Amino acid sequence: MLTRIDHIGIACFDLDKTVDFYRATYGFEVFHTEVNEEQGVREAMLRINGTDDGGASYIQLLEPVREDSTVAKWLDKNGEGVHHIAFGTADVDTDSEEIRGRGVRVLYDEPRRGSMDSRITFLHPKDCHGVLTELVTAAASHTSEYSSATTSH
Amino acid sequence: MLTRIDHIGIACFDLDKTVDFYRATYGFEVFHTEVNEEQGVREAMLRINGTDDGGASYIQLLEPVREDSTVAKWLDKNGEGVHHIAFGTADVDTDSEEIRGRGVRVLYDEPRRGSMDSRITFLHPKDCHGVLTELVTAAASHTSEYSSATTSH
Repeated sequence: MLTRIDHIGIACFDLDKTVDFYRATYGFEVFHTEVNEEQGVREAMLRINGTDDGGASYIQLLEPVREDSTVAKWLDKNGEGVHHIAFGTADVDTDSEEIRGRGVRVLYDEPRRGSMDSRITFLHPKDCHGVLTELVTAAASHTSEYSSATTSH
Repeated sequence: MLTRIDHIGIACFDLDKTVDFYRATYGFEVFHTEVNEEQGVREAMLRINGTDDGGASYIQLLEPVREDSTVAKWLDKNGEGVHHIAFGTADVDTDSEEIRGRGVRVLYDEPRRGSMDSRITFLHPKDCHGVLTELVTAAASHTSEYSSATTSH
């Protein structure tokens, strides 16, 4: 069951400048940064609020680290903007299989590693009214016990 | 201070079909529907989770009700997809003035009426790394005392 808006994924050309914009304009701080080699992105997670399922909602800023990454291609076509949205679930395996059974194309055979050791998959935007939609199960260390943390780690 | 992801605004061609998709695929139910004549949209709010500031996060589905609405023009150009994101604040007037003072264009001189009697304004996407960004103060009747409600009203 999908129980929260986990994050909004925003593609940008320059991660450091975009992080600076979000900090200076809104006061949002970086909670976590990492490079995901498989996805071909460098990313920053800005934690916005806790959620009543014990998780949290983030803004995820994404900068491509190689020209053949999907985010690089997306930026070439669209420019900066919202790249995808993500819903959080306790069980991405079950939910993604159920959704596949409802006729929506799930992009991975099995969930893969996402931000902060989460497990993720994506749904085809053409099956989701134009919205690239991610499903996320947070790592145990990033659910309830971390939901009120505000420092980077 | 912006304290939550209030909603993700998604533009669609057919609101009823899109609501059906979100219900059938994810189990999300309609919390509220309305027509906003000023914005030129018919909309459905799907409540996804409560937030630790006493509010909630929604998916907002938007169908234009007239051809000259900004959402109609956006759909003509982009097709269906994420139209804007919205951050919640207890005081949209103060926050929008502060953000204006930081050099970001605020689209309205004064906040206007948004979904569920909220007060809203928008920030220019060209000043926000390509993201049309809304600021929202929920009506008092839609903050903490409603944050666990799941029925339409």
